[in-house]
Amino acid sequence: MVKIGIIGAGRIGKVHLKSLSYFVHDAQVTAVADPFMNEDTEKLVKSYGVKNVYTDYRKIIEDPDIDAVFICSSTDTHASISVEAINAGKHVFCEKPIDHTTEKIADVQAALDKHPVKFQVGFNRRFDHNFAAIRAAVDEGKIGQPHIVKITSRDPEPPRPEYIAVSGGMFLDMTIHDFDMASFLVNSDIEEVYVESAVLVDPAIGEQGDVDTAIITMKMSDGALVVIDNSRKAAYGYDQRAEVFGSKGTVMTTNDKLSSAVVADKNGITGEKPLYFFLERYMESFSTEEQAFVKAIEDNTDTPVSIHEGLMAVKAGLAAKLSVKEHRPVKISEIK
Amino acid sequence: MVKIGIIGAGRIGKVHLKSLSYFVHDAQVTAVADPFMNEDTEKLVKSYGVKNVYTDYRKIIEDPDIDAVFICSSTDTHASISVEAINAGKHVFCEKPIDHTTEKIADVQAALDKHPVKFQVGFNRRFDHNFAAIRAAVDEGKIGQPHIVKITSRDPEPPRPEYIAVSGGMFLDMTIHDFDMASFLVNSDIEEVYVESAVLVDPAIGEQGDVDTAIITMKMSDGALVVIDNSRKAAYGYDQRAEVFGSKGTVMTTNDKLSSAVVADKNGITGEKPLYFFLERYMESFSTEEQAFVKAIEDNTDTPVSIHEGLMAVKAGLAAKLSVKEHRPVKISEIK
Amino acid sequence: MVKIGIIGAGRIGKVHLKSLSYFVHDAQVTAVADPFMNEDTEKLVKSYGVKNVYTDYRKIIEDPDIDAVFICSSTDTHASISVEAINAGKHVFCEKPIDHTTEKIADVQAALDKHPVKFQVGFNRRFDHNFAAIRAAVDEGKIGQPHIVKITSRDPEPPRPEYIAVSGGMFLDMTIHDFDMASFLVNSDIEEVYVESAVLVDPAIGEQGDVDTAIITMKMSDGALVVIDNSRKAAYGYDQRAEVFGSKGTVMTTNDKLSSAVVADKNGITGEKPLYFFLERYMESFSTEEQAFVKAIEDNTDTPVSIHEGLMAVKAGLAAKLSVKEHRPVKISEIK
Amino acid sequence: MVKIGIIGAGRIGKVHLKSLSYFVHDAQVTAVADPFMNEDTEKLVKSYGVKNVYTDYRKIIEDPDIDAVFICSSTDTHASISVEAINAGKHVFCEKPIDHTTEKIADVQAALDKHPVKFQVGFNRRFDHNFAAIRAAVDEGKIGQPHIVKITSRDPEPPRPEYIAVSGGMFLDMTIHDFDMASFLVNSDIEEVYVESAVLVDPAIGEQGDVDTAIITMKMSDGALVVIDNSRKAAYGYDQRAEVFGSKGTVMTTNDKLSSAVVADKNGITGEKPLYFFLERYMESFSTEEQAFVKAIEDNTDTPVSIHEGLMAVKAGLAAKLSVKEHRPVKISEIK
Repeated sequence: MVKIGIIGAGRIGKVHLKSLSYFVHDAQVTAVADPFMNEDTEKLVKSYGVKNVYTDYRKIIEDPDIDAVFICSSTDTHASISVEAINAGKHVFCEKPIDHTTEKIADVQAALDKHPVKFQVGFNRRFDHNFAAIRAAVDEGKIGQPHIVKITSRDPEPPRPEYIAVSGGMFLDMTIHDFDMASFLVNSDIEEVYVESAVLVDPAIGEQGDVDTAIITMKMSDGALVVIDNSRKAAYGYDQRAEVFGSKGTVMTTNDKLSSAVVADKNGITGEKPLYFFLERYMESFSTEEQAFVKAIEDNTDTPVSIHEGLMAVKAGLAAKLSVKEHRPVKISEIK
Repeated sequence: MVKIGIIGAGRIGKVHLKSLSYFVHDAQVTAVADPFMNEDTEKLVKSYGVKNVYTDYRKIIEDPDIDAVFICSSTDTHASISVEAINAGKHVFCEKPIDHTTEKIADVQAALDKHPVKFQVGFNRRFDHNFAAIRAAVDEGKIGQPHIVKITSRDPEPPRPEYIAVSGGMFLDMTIHDFDMASFLVNSDIEEVYVESAVLVDPAIGEQGDVDTAIITMKMSDGALVVIDNSRKAAYGYDQRAEVFGSKGTVMTTNDKLSSAVVADKNGITGEKPLYFFLERYMESFSTEEQAFVKAIEDNTDTPVSIHEGLMAVKAGLAAKLSVKEHRPVKISEIK
Repeated sequence: MVKIGIIGAGRIGKVHLKSLSYFVHDAQVTAVADPFMNEDTEKLVKSYGVKNVYTDYRKIIEDPDIDAVFICSSTDTHASISVEAINAGKHVFCEKPIDHTTEKIADVQAALDKHPVKFQVGFNRRFDHNFAAIRAAVDEGKIGQPHIVKITSRDPEPPRPEYIAVSGGMFLDMTIHDFDMASFLVNSDIEEVYVESAVLVDPAIGEQGDVDTAIITMKMSDGALVVIDNSRKAAYGYDQRAEVFGSKGTVMTTNDKLSSAVVADKNGITGEKPLYFFLERYMESFSTEEQAFVKAIEDNTDTPVSIHEGLMAVKAGLAAKLSVKEHRPVKISEIK
Repeated sequence: MVKIGIIGAGRIGKVHLKSLSYFVHDAQVTAVADPFMNEDTEKLVKSYGVKNVYTDYRKIIEDPDIDAVFICSSTDTHASISVEAINAGKHVFCEKPIDHTTEKIADVQAALDKHPVKFQVGFNRRFDHNFAAIRAAVDEGKIGQPHIVKITSRDPEPPRPEYIAVSGGMFLDMTIHDFDMASFLVNSDIEEVYVESAVLVDPAIGEQGDVDTAIITMKMSDGALVVIDNSRKAAYGYDQRAEVFGSKGTVMTTNDKLSSAVVADKNGITGEKPLYFFLERYMESFSTEEQAFVKAIEDNTDTPVSIHEGLMAVKAGLAAKLSVKEHRPVKISEIK
């Protein structure tokens, strides 16, 4: 039984609490810490049988009974808390992104070099049933050598303007999942990034210095070409599709829906919209990534999403920002 | 070059004229006859390069230069004109149904016994790309031994009440295509028919002594079970689907549409309705059946839809009417 | 918090134990009884935090702390244990079918007349996302007045021959879900049943006096016609589809799959098979039906699946058996 | 009746001959010229009722009875023959591309300035049922303001290496259709082009100085972003899809198939591959573009695809080549 402390009881912390409690039989959440812990949250946390509730996350790091921590705090604290936890010998599951800068990710890497605990980054979409099926088809050689990767990733609603200011911008907040997805689907690193982007959804986003619509072209280390299309607002919901085209064929997925029902009437043939909210769409992937993390601890194997993947996705995000600024293709090797 | 005379220049006669002219290179329509031939029709006919236009169909039957006749006149004349044409040594393409009675079909058979010309019944749906693909999958053994056949056949609009009176009713006018389709899909004869039916679309249809909604269950000579569901009115258009389920799998088709475009918006994901009109839906099948008929003449082989198929479908229609009347399963062998 | 005892710890009992524990927050399983309780099962049961484990189900019925029982024992004991539990004032969730005979169901009804506790029958498919979406479309008037209901229900594998002997046959074991589904989809009672059936999957099933392939036609009290097609063995997995066609349009569902991935290569465009096993396919529906039952207790309202539905489905099964025997349509009113 | 001469009797010339003869009632092909006219071709041409067959195309241009010419000769002669025909007062339908250089297109423009006959470029895909349905949805405001356009265009087989040498390369030969499609779908001009490309299909293509795989990003004058993905070889056939995503939703199309049949068996659920050959896929679009051209002559209105569209697509192709060469985004305004 792996004993887990969760640091951060916001939305994503609560998701992990629920998912670990229900679906990960070999794990037990024994403590949750949040600086803004209130009565409601404490009540909720205790309803899952969690014994210890703290405001200070250091209580978790210092608890000798805890094997692993889930870092679900605000992004700017991910790296420093990771370093503290690693130095204390805890296995770490760190939500994405590790940090907005490569320097702080290097600090985490340095800690891992000294204390080789398990470290996993929360790229949950790798564990989604649809994307995992694409990767499986690629691995099984069904489509041959990958030539073209296409990822459609459109959110149902833009975040509030004040969030955009702290999020690092669309590329580090939203596209970062798609950068990692490209690497995952063809098991290869990003080498070059070019962005064509615009502010088409909401001028307020532009006023924050960010974009809301983008087409991102990339070259991978295995030679495949990638295109990601992003929008902050799809009127029909959360649009998450992918395709890998190769020498022998192509594999692609569509969106998940609440039901398969279609109505045919005088207006046409109408099916349901995609699932709207990322927690509906990806709920299952959270328990799958947690199970993989716990299993890596139990079996003493590598985690499936290492700090390398966490770093590469951030580098791609920084390269994308530079590409927008200088309106040119940017090599990942330019990002230090 | 097979020289053809068309008897009857109504809707279906015009379809064959156009289709033979454009798409059947080895055929030439040299004469068209219709008792109600008017100026407009004559002009249209001549625009296809047809030399002779008559009101009396006997002129076609007596023309020694004509090899084959297409009988597209009213149903009650199909059998007698067929007999005349056969006796004159013409090959005959006869629109469905040959007749509403088995007696008159027997007269045609008797004529064929004496004059073994080519005779083909106009079950054009056998030549449709979708249904032909099902049959091909069955023939190739892809679904193993057929166990269940399902045919959905729903018209976009009921015919006018006065037509219902002369049409022989839904089973002889509309379902007759589906009876033949069942035989075609599994290459087997109908042995028993049971009908559950109702008047749900329009009470006026019930007043004509007919039904407008039916589920027809059948047993085939190869042991397969069949279900046909019919409605005289599908609000979304012409619904023509089929499935054959067998020991190794199932094969099924959906409807054809004008385009594959789907729109996703806040109301859902909406595609086009099926093609509405039978001529839109089945236009290609007319030229394919005509080509098959002409080829059978040229190669002196059997036609793909013989008088046997024409007779069996009518017997199934008569069995269906008896099943409704006596509310019981009726064996085809009961129909003399 | 509704306290629940589960009677029967076989496959379906374990499903309810897991599902109640994880997904029904207002319920607590406090006892499980099974005459064949062994060490493994006891260990499993206790891992869910259940305090009391018994071999004698009467310990549950006599426990004053228990509010409701789930009857998951063998079919022949459903009715008698239901009566005992009702008489003891327990709310009852009874797995389907209540019994193979109408007499024993009448006994349960008599008990309920005296002790009006909550009683729900385990027709879980009513709570499936796909079928519920059809019913919602019907209720919202999207398809107008229902005319035709089509249900495809094919199992991936036939049961073992020894199970067929005790199951009551295909109509009481497998089709019973489809009978109830027909009633559910159009919110109406079955009035007449006609069956065309055959032994096409396995002669051993015929030797047990049962059939393995059937097309069942029915008439509903609201005038709609229904067709169910059943097979004991679909080579491609568990096939569960439905359609309701009405005056304004049609609504239909397809099968659920593990992922939406399709591979296009030189052989065609290939998607995944339907989910194979009923527990995979319907897992979510179990927690939904349990939540509805618990809510009916808490709110003191009617359960969504009453003994009436349980009785009508069994009557339809008995009518189907009579239809096969006498090869004629059978009215439900003939079944006493 | 518009009298037409066809210049060039190669593959595309024959397509127009057949299509004009069968499907364009107001047109009559009275002459066909080809420098390599042989006996077989002459026989074929005459079977369509064409009176005059020439080796010298000037006979067509000098024929006072001819109203319009279809220029289907080799690409390097399109512009000069267009000029001659325009100067002779003939309406011109010119196959794409008008030329590989903007200079020669300017010559055609100059001729049109003096002799304002009708001039249409053979971008037949604008007349395809699927792409026309997308444009219709855009025009009807169904998807709001366009934000992202996605075009997938993959050929089933690369051309022979010797053809690549004279074709102008992938961007002028194959992508040129997609450049025009982008303009068509959102009714807007291309402003900037960036290409990420590779040689992944066949090294022999690279040896010709061309690429075989590309992702092309563009910015349109209305602000929309576009991505085209091209491959010279899709193992599953001819892949032609598009999507326009906007402020209110998205509209997309899939590929056409020979039939809608799908087979479900133990290997999965398999449908047919897309239509393989461009003539199968786009046959209907040829007659539709011809009808539009003839109608523009009859009604004396603008043709639907003017020399402007022809020029812009060539400029985009040249910009794409420059983008590959200099590995940077290229503005259309840079191409003179």
